[in-house]
Amino acid sequence: MEADRLKMEIAQRMSTERYEHVLRVTETAKKLAATNRISIEKAEQAALFHDIAKFMDKSDQQHILETADEDPRLFSFHHELWHAPVGAIIARDEFGINDKDILNAIRYHTTGRANMSPLEKLIYISDMIEPGRNFPGIEDLRKKAAENLETAMESCIHQSVQFLVNKRAPVFPDSIDCYNQHLEKKGTVKL
Amino acid sequence: MEADRLKMEIAQRMSTERYEHVLRVTETAKKLAATNRISIEKAEQAALFHDIAKFMDKSDQQHILETADEDPRLFSFHHELWHAPVGAIIARDEFGINDKDILNAIRYHTTGRANMSPLEKLIYISDMIEPGRNFPGIEDLRKKAAENLETAMESCIHQSVQFLVNKRAPVFPDSIDCYNQHLEKKGTVKL
Repeated sequence: MEADRLKMEIAQRMSTERYEHVLRVTETAKKLAATNRISIEKAEQAALFHDIAKFMDKSDQQHILETADEDPRLFSFHHELWHAPVGAIIARDEFGINDKDILNAIRYHTTGRANMSPLEKLIYISDMIEPGRNFPGIEDLRKKAAENLETAMESCIHQSVQFLVNKRAPVFPDSIDCYNQHLEKKGTVKL
Repeated sequence: MEADRLKMEIAQRMSTERYEHVLRVTETAKKLAATNRISIEKAEQAALFHDIAKFMDKSDQQHILETADEDPRLFSFHHELWHAPVGAIIARDEFGINDKDILNAIRYHTTGRANMSPLEKLIYISDMIEPGRNFPGIEDLRKKAAENLETAMESCIHQSVQFLVNKRAPVFPDSIDCYNQHLEKKGTVKL
């Protein structure tokens, strides 16, 4: 499907605000792809699809996850986490996206995970730092993203986990695996 | 083994400072056991043994963990975590402790885990709030422990995870499982 028709399809499935966020994530992802020698086309596709399931009914999302035999741990966490794997399934089954890396970038854009590919990191980071986002420390994340994807990912996952823990919210195990692995890469002393 | 001889054995395996900590944890655990209808004898045994492996050589601890086919994830975390499962193995193999609940209280006193027994929680909390400990918020934890073991455990594991994340230190997966489960019990909104 060509980009303009795909954008119309996506726009129809979400609010205007959310669609504008998707377009900003897409622009951010394309820029970062260019400077990091990642396929701009793959970055664009993953970014366009990343929130495609965001406005689906909770029960429809649950049905899709159950049918697809997805990670059952998801069901004991808030359904906010579900739209990412559901989005990957929709991109594959309704839009014929078969590139595993694009699908994983959609699938893990909310939680992160251990052993993320460069494209997965790119989408995770772009979703967090797109120009519409605003939270303490975001300028530092944007600066890091412009310099080094790896350093930016470490700071983004730390920021996410810290935000959740500070408000006493649950942390999905994949996110802690991602957090721990990025510390290990830096050689930080453990515990 | 009677308590006095056991204490001598334990004292010989650690520094004076550490042994004094063990005695304070033991007194704290016995008091909390009495008010929470938990066996005072089990609380005393678990507390006395909890740090028995703290001063063992790292290589000896690694050997014991490998021989006992312990959780391999431990080896990619700091060896500070190892003394807890190693202590449980020593209590069983060298001192003949066969009570599974006592052994688990020793084993999980550093990380916590999901589905902790009352005795496991008691030891985890006592280790954290014994009179020699001093950190911001400890008085609140002591107050909660005097009132309700469950609330105290939720605050203790939150405090531990928050401390680690704030200093960008790794968090063992069992600790996040414990943290998530205690939030669920309170019905906190997830993510």
